[in-house]
Amino acid sequence: MAEIKNALYAQSGGVTAVINASACGVIETARKNSDKIANVYAGRNGIIGALTEDLIDTSYETDADIASLKFTPSGAFGSCRYKLKGFEENIAQYERLMEIFKAHNIGYFFYNGGGDSADTCHKISTLSEKMNLPIHAIHIPKTVDNDLPITDVCPGFGSVAKYIAISTREASYDVLSMAKTSTKVFVIEVMGRHAGWIAAAGGLAADQENDIPIVILFPEIEFNQDTFLAKVDANVKKYEYCSVVVSEGARWSDGKFLAEQGTRDAFGHAQLGGAAPVVANMIKEALGYKYHWAVADYLQRSARHIASKTDVEQAYALGKAAVDMAIAGENAVMPTIVRKSDSPYVWGIGKAKLEDIANIEKMMPKEFITDDGFGITEACRRYLLPLIEGEDYPPYKNGMPEYITLKNKSVKKILNTEFKL
Amino acid sequence: MAEIKNALYAQSGGVTAVINASACGVIETARKNSDKIANVYAGRNGIIGALTEDLIDTSYETDADIASLKFTPSGAFGSCRYKLKGFEENIAQYERLMEIFKAHNIGYFFYNGGGDSADTCHKISTLSEKMNLPIHAIHIPKTVDNDLPITDVCPGFGSVAKYIAISTREASYDVLSMAKTSTKVFVIEVMGRHAGWIAAAGGLAADQENDIPIVILFPEIEFNQDTFLAKVDANVKKYEYCSVVVSEGARWSDGKFLAEQGTRDAFGHAQLGGAAPVVANMIKEALGYKYHWAVADYLQRSARHIASKTDVEQAYALGKAAVDMAIAGENAVMPTIVRKSDSPYVWGIGKAKLEDIANIEKMMPKEFITDDGFGITEACRRYLLPLIEGEDYPPYKNGMPEYITLKNKSVKKILNTEFKL
Repeated sequence: MAEIKNALYAQSGGVTAVINASACGVIETARKNSDKIANVYAGRNGIIGALTEDLIDTSYETDADIASLKFTPSGAFGSCRYKLKGFEENIAQYERLMEIFKAHNIGYFFYNGGGDSADTCHKISTLSEKMNLPIHAIHIPKTVDNDLPITDVCPGFGSVAKYIAISTREASYDVLSMAKTSTKVFVIEVMGRHAGWIAAAGGLAADQENDIPIVILFPEIEFNQDTFLAKVDANVKKYEYCSVVVSEGARWSDGKFLAEQGTRDAFGHAQLGGAAPVVANMIKEALGYKYHWAVADYLQRSARHIASKTDVEQAYALGKAAVDMAIAGENAVMPTIVRKSDSPYVWGIGKAKLEDIANIEKMMPKEFITDDGFGITEACRRYLLPLIEGEDYPPYKNGMPEYITLKNKSVKKILNTEFKL
Repeated sequence: MAEIKNALYAQSGGVTAVINASACGVIETARKNSDKIANVYAGRNGIIGALTEDLIDTSYETDADIASLKFTPSGAFGSCRYKLKGFEENIAQYERLMEIFKAHNIGYFFYNGGGDSADTCHKISTLSEKMNLPIHAIHIPKTVDNDLPITDVCPGFGSVAKYIAISTREASYDVLSMAKTSTKVFVIEVMGRHAGWIAAAGGLAADQENDIPIVILFPEIEFNQDTFLAKVDANVKKYEYCSVVVSEGARWSDGKFLAEQGTRDAFGHAQLGGAAPVVANMIKEALGYKYHWAVADYLQRSARHIASKTDVEQAYALGKAAVDMAIAGENAVMPTIVRKSDSPYVWGIGKAKLEDIANIEKMMPKEFITDDGFGITEACRRYLLPLIEGEDYPPYKNGMPEYITLKNKSVKKILNTEFKL
C-alpha cells in the first residue's frame, strides 16, 4: 500500500465563477480517499503561497463550507498572476517547490489554471522525476478564454458564455424598445484577448424566436471599419437598432487593439478606455446613431448568480477526476471534457498529456465564423449551446447570494526560510 | 352603468426589467373587467404611438403571452423619450390626443413612466375635464432612478439595486482573489444621473458576513479627489483591495460630471468614456494600483434574469391598482407603494395626486449617506434591503431565458390624419 501523502492544490491566473467548484471536487474527493491523501493544503494566492511556504490547511474547513465552494465564485484561496520561469532561467524556483513538497510530505500536486500553469505543472512533474521525489502532478483546466486544446471546453467559459448571451439578449430587448427616439446601437465589450469564444457567445442572444441583429467583432478577424459600419448601418435600417459584441482583443490590420486607439484625457494621459467606447464613438461619428455601451469586465467572469449548470458540473467533475487520476498513479496529465454528442449533450472525462497541452492556444475555427466575419455559424451554435445549458442558482439570504468565505488557516511552517519571488 | 370604453396604455422613458410586469397587471386586470374596459390599446413606442394614431391592439395577444410579460424585460410595446410641451407651447399635442381618445372611444389612460410622464398624465387629465371628454388618467410609476416622491419605491429600482449589489459582491470576491499580484481596485459605474439610489445599492454587497471595502461616489456629494484617494488607499492598505461604485452622475465641485473629464481620442474627438475609467485612471496615476473597471449601462436595467421578486410583485400590483382605481372612478392619481414595516417588509398600495408627484425629484436623504460621504448608513440599508428581497427567475429554454415578443398588431386607423411630432 502506498504511503499516505498530503496534496497541494493551487489556483492560477484569472479566477472564474466555477474554479471553486473544481476546488470542491478536489477536496471532497480527497476526503473520501483519506487512506491515500491525508490533508489537502492550498497555496495562499496560488503558486506564490507554495513558493513562500504560505500554505492553507483545508482540513479546518467543515464539509458544509467545502460544499459551499461549489456555488461561490472567485478563488477561495487566492490566485495569482505569476509565471514560473524556464528551468535554465530560474531552477531555484523549482528546487524551492521540491523542498516545500518534501518538507510538507506532499505527494500530489493539483494545479488549477490555464495554459501557463499546465506548462508549470508539466515542469514540476519532470523535475520531480529527475530528483526522484515522486509527485503526482495533475493539471485541472480553468480559463474563461476557453483556449486550451484537446478538452471540449474549459471550465469557467460556459458560465461567461451564458452571462454574455443573456446580457446581450436583455440589452437588445431594451434597445429595441427605445430605438424609435433614442439609442439605436448598443455595444458590449467582452473578454478574450486572443480567442473569440466569449464574443461568439454573444451570438446566442439571437435564435429562431429572437430575431436580434448582432454584429460580433472577433480577435481572430482583422477589423475593417468600412465593412463593419456598413453592417451596423444595414441592421439599423432593417431592424431600427443593432447590438455589437466587441472582444477586448479586436484588432486593426496593423495588429493594434481597437482599445489602444490612442485615447487621451485632458492631461494627455494615455488610454483610459476599452474597445466598446471606441467602437461606439466610431458609429456615432460615421452614422450619427445614438449609442450606449457597456464593459462587462469582471462582472462576466464572476457572475456565479447565472452560472451554467453544465459548467459547474464539469468544473466539479474535473476536480474529482484529477484526484482519482492522481490516486490511480497518473502524472503529468490533465483531465479533459470529451464531447460524445451535441444534442443531447453527452460528455465524459478524458485525459490529456501535459506535453500536449502546454503553450497551445485554441482559437475559434474558421468554420465557426460566418463568411462576413461578423457572426457565428450553425456549427458554432451547436458547439456553444450545450455549454450554457441549465441554471445552478446559489442559495440566497436577504436577497443576496450567500457565498462562502473560508477560514483559510495557515499550515505551520516547517522550513521557515525566506524565498525571494 | 357606465359605458364600456377602451383603455390606452403607454410606456415612457427608459425601460426596466419590470415595466412589462406593470403592463401585465394592467392588461390582466382589464381583461377581468371586460364589462367596463373593452380593449386595452397600447401606444406603439409610447406616447408617440398615441399622437400618430399608431396603436397596438393587445386583445390579439393570448392570455399566456400576456402572462409572459411578467418575466420579460424591456418595453414590450416600445417606449420613447418624448416629452410633451406645456399647454401654452404646444396645445396642439394635447388636442391631438383628445381627438385620438375620442376616435378610439378611449376612456382610460394609463401612463407608465417617471416624473415627466406623471406631469403629462396630469395635463391630459386637466384638459380632458376642460374639454368635457372624461378620461380616467392614471399614472403608473416606473423608474430605475427611484426618484419619484411619495411612493416608497419606484418599480424597476429594486431589480437594478439587486443586480448592482450582487455584481459588486461577485466582482469584489474576484478582485480579492487576485489582489496579491494583480488588480487591487475595481470600479463599477452605475446609473442615476441625479439621485444616488442605485449607487447606494452597491453598498449592499458588504454585510456582516461579507467584509468588503466599498467606496461609493454619489451624485449628491460633491467629489473631492483628495479624500477619495485617501479612502481608497486606506482600504487597499487594510484589505489588500478596494471596490468603488461610481454613479454616472458623480460630479466635481464645479458641477461638471466626472465622466466629462475632457477625454479625447487621438483625433481630438471629445468624451468617449464614462466615469469609471476616469476614476480608475485617477487611482492609477495617484496611487499606482492596478485596476479594472466595468460600465454596467443597460445591462443593469434589463437584467430580468436576476430581478427582485419584490420589485416584480410591486410592478404588477401597481399596474393592477391603476386599473382598479380607474374603474372606481379615480382620475389624475398614481398608485403608490406604502411601506408599513421594514422587517419583515410589509407594503400596501396607496394613492397620490399627480399634482403632488409631477416634477419633484426624490434624492437620497442625508441620513442615508455616511458622514465621510462614501458609504451607506444602517438607515439606508434598512430601506434598501427589502426592495431586493426574493428571486423571480424567468423560464429557460436551451440555456436562455424565454422572453416574449408580442404580435403587436395595429389598431385600424380611424382618423388617419398625419400629425407632425
